[in-house]
Amino acid sequence: MSRKVALVSAGMSRFGSRPETPKALFDEAWREMAGRAPTWSGKADEAWIGTVGFGGHQPGNSAALFLQGTPSQGAPAHRVENACASSGFALRNAFLALRSGAVDTAVVAGVESMTPFTKGHRGYWLGVSGDTEVERASGLTFPGVYAMMARAHMEKFGTTRDQLAAVAVKNHAFGAHNPHAQFQKATTLEKALAAPMVADPLGLFDCCSTTDGAATLLLVGEERVPEFTDKPIWLTGSGAATDTLALHDRKDFTTVAAATQAGAQAFKGTGKSVADLDFAEVHDCFTIAELLAIESLGLVKPGQGGPAAAAGRTNVGGDLATINPSGGLKAKGHPLGASGAGQAVEVFEQFHGLAGGRALADAKLALTHNVGGSGATCAVHLWQKGWA
Amino acid sequence: MSRKVALVSAGMSRFGSRPETPKALFDEAWREMAGRAPTWSGKADEAWIGTVGFGGHQPGNSAALFLQGTPSQGAPAHRVENACASSGFALRNAFLALRSGAVDTAVVAGVESMTPFTKGHRGYWLGVSGDTEVERASGLTFPGVYAMMARAHMEKFGTTRDQLAAVAVKNHAFGAHNPHAQFQKATTLEKALAAPMVADPLGLFDCCSTTDGAATLLLVGEERVPEFTDKPIWLTGSGAATDTLALHDRKDFTTVAAATQAGAQAFKGTGKSVADLDFAEVHDCFTIAELLAIESLGLVKPGQGGPAAAAGRTNVGGDLATINPSGGLKAKGHPLGASGAGQAVEVFEQFHGLAGGRALADAKLALTHNVGGSGATCAVHLWQKGWA
Repeated sequence: MSRKVALVSAGMSRFGSRPETPKALFDEAWREMAGRAPTWSGKADEAWIGTVGFGGHQPGNSAALFLQGTPSQGAPAHRVENACASSGFALRNAFLALRSGAVDTAVVAGVESMTPFTKGHRGYWLGVSGDTEVERASGLTFPGVYAMMARAHMEKFGTTRDQLAAVAVKNHAFGAHNPHAQFQKATTLEKALAAPMVADPLGLFDCCSTTDGAATLLLVGEERVPEFTDKPIWLTGSGAATDTLALHDRKDFTTVAAATQAGAQAFKGTGKSVADLDFAEVHDCFTIAELLAIESLGLVKPGQGGPAAAAGRTNVGGDLATINPSGGLKAKGHPLGASGAGQAVEVFEQFHGLAGGRALADAKLALTHNVGGSGATCAVHLWQKGWA
Repeated sequence: MSRKVALVSAGMSRFGSRPETPKALFDEAWREMAGRAPTWSGKADEAWIGTVGFGGHQPGNSAALFLQGTPSQGAPAHRVENACASSGFALRNAFLALRSGAVDTAVVAGVESMTPFTKGHRGYWLGVSGDTEVERASGLTFPGVYAMMARAHMEKFGTTRDQLAAVAVKNHAFGAHNPHAQFQKATTLEKALAAPMVADPLGLFDCCSTTDGAATLLLVGEERVPEFTDKPIWLTGSGAATDTLALHDRKDFTTVAAATQAGAQAFKGTGKSVADLDFAEVHDCFTIAELLAIESLGLVKPGQGGPAAAAGRTNVGGDLATINPSGGLKAKGHPLGASGAGQAVEVFEQFHGLAGGRALADAKLALTHNVGGSGATCAVHLWQKGWA
């Protein structure tokens, strides 16, 4: 048996439009994490930091910079870049390293500063993670790519704009209770449907926003847990997969094969299944992406995501796992490389009773699902509350 | 005991000025690696790919693209970016993952396409891995940064331009026997010293070149070795460290603290020391960097690198480990993200009798040393020949 891995602290910056440098956002997240681990020296054995473009401030070798000025300065640090799944893959690296026994304490982080680009070529910059050869050359940016996926899903399954909007309404309602969220305001189906079209059939409320932010996690090997907490969250499963960058190279783009594969790997050997999940933070960069996520992970059958969302099955009180209690990328915001780590912060806050008005009763098992591009990379992790 | 990790195959593209796409260079390296592992299905459990800028072709999510069209398509893949140490850190991730037991077969790769930038803002692009806040803002690119390190070394220890040039002469002599090398031609001390000045005291022969290339490695857990080879190369140690990005934030820049720390970690528990090394591939992006490497790793005392190089102590027949038998970054070329993996390809070729005119007799223990920036990141690995 490999040794168990525990999440013992987590923190994040407020997500939103933030004028600070990426390093300052990282430090803000770090401080919250450190405050929640009061016995920690601040020294990690190793760090993995996910970031896509780092807001142009320090495009190369940034992992070293992030640790500067922290007690972990000098520790090995890796920058991981897998588009919007960067910190999901950073988390996987830490999981494997901790399991190996060579590393006892690991920091996982994600950081992104996007708003510096809103004055310039934001669309271009965001698009760099899309397929360059055909999609970018055709002028496709991500709203267009996901709109194609939504359109295909509508054609094949009869998914409607109302069903998509139901995802936005649910996630904004959760976001209203999350002090870290970019948008802390509920919306209605009518407002969501009336918003301007971005890329047909995706309107403004179907799309995540441009966000700056950072999130940090502290993970340790099981023998080290008592030094930090008597309430460890066990990271019981990790799965990851890749797929083609471009949609046209896939057999089907009404499903995300990498999510199915990564999900199966995360559950393997745990004796658990998606039916056991209390909640999941899934990668809802667009409302259609949340439907693709719950279908690809097997919470519902292909095509049943839309009806499930519209019927409230993924909301509090629904029969399925509650999806995106943090507000999701949709309301909490989506600072690319920070989103995967941010999902795990929500797991920490839910299990530790820090989720305020969005708290879920008796949650014990959660999943995080982080996607890069339109599904070219995907990392899935499974979290078990380690106390009664 | 954690399980042992073995290198069972390795391959690289020819390094040089290559008009192909980065993906084509990766595939070229992959084919050589696959050819050297004839029983391999081509399927790896997971892949780590180091690349800094990917020649602008696919700036984001590139790890997924590299696996496309190989039998490993769909496997989890991580892009690791730690400047010029990217694939050294990719290697460390694979080592940790294989030790964990969760991964049985891993591909480590490095890829870079630099010459597309020679027509534009090469200096800017190369500089992105340097400290942005002060060094880049002051107009410093890497030749200038290393020139400052060289000048400080000269002031403190009396290091001379002749001693620096001796590194270039040695490495170009090795490169003349390496069919993968960018420069397969020996030079002389006189020619090296007479070459144009780039950044005083570093002349043209003190600087590595602009290079395109890729290198790939296949590593497996010990129980899987017999499926691949009866001649495994054991990866017995791995160390890594970070330091401040900027020189002015360090106490001393006549030594590379991250290399000292990473080297110590790599040797820890192995019962070996630098005195046992038969050869080492060190990160000679500039001639001064090779001297800093052998001093920081402890092969010689601080300040003794220059005299050691001039006296031939690091050449064939010298009393120290032979340094950079591949020709090093200096002659083999330095395609940033590919260099760390390329160093391990040399270990494979030396141990397997594939090193032709640069073959070292009876080599059994080797070290690879890969640096990012001016020493902000460093990864060191230790390799033991697994047969008589």
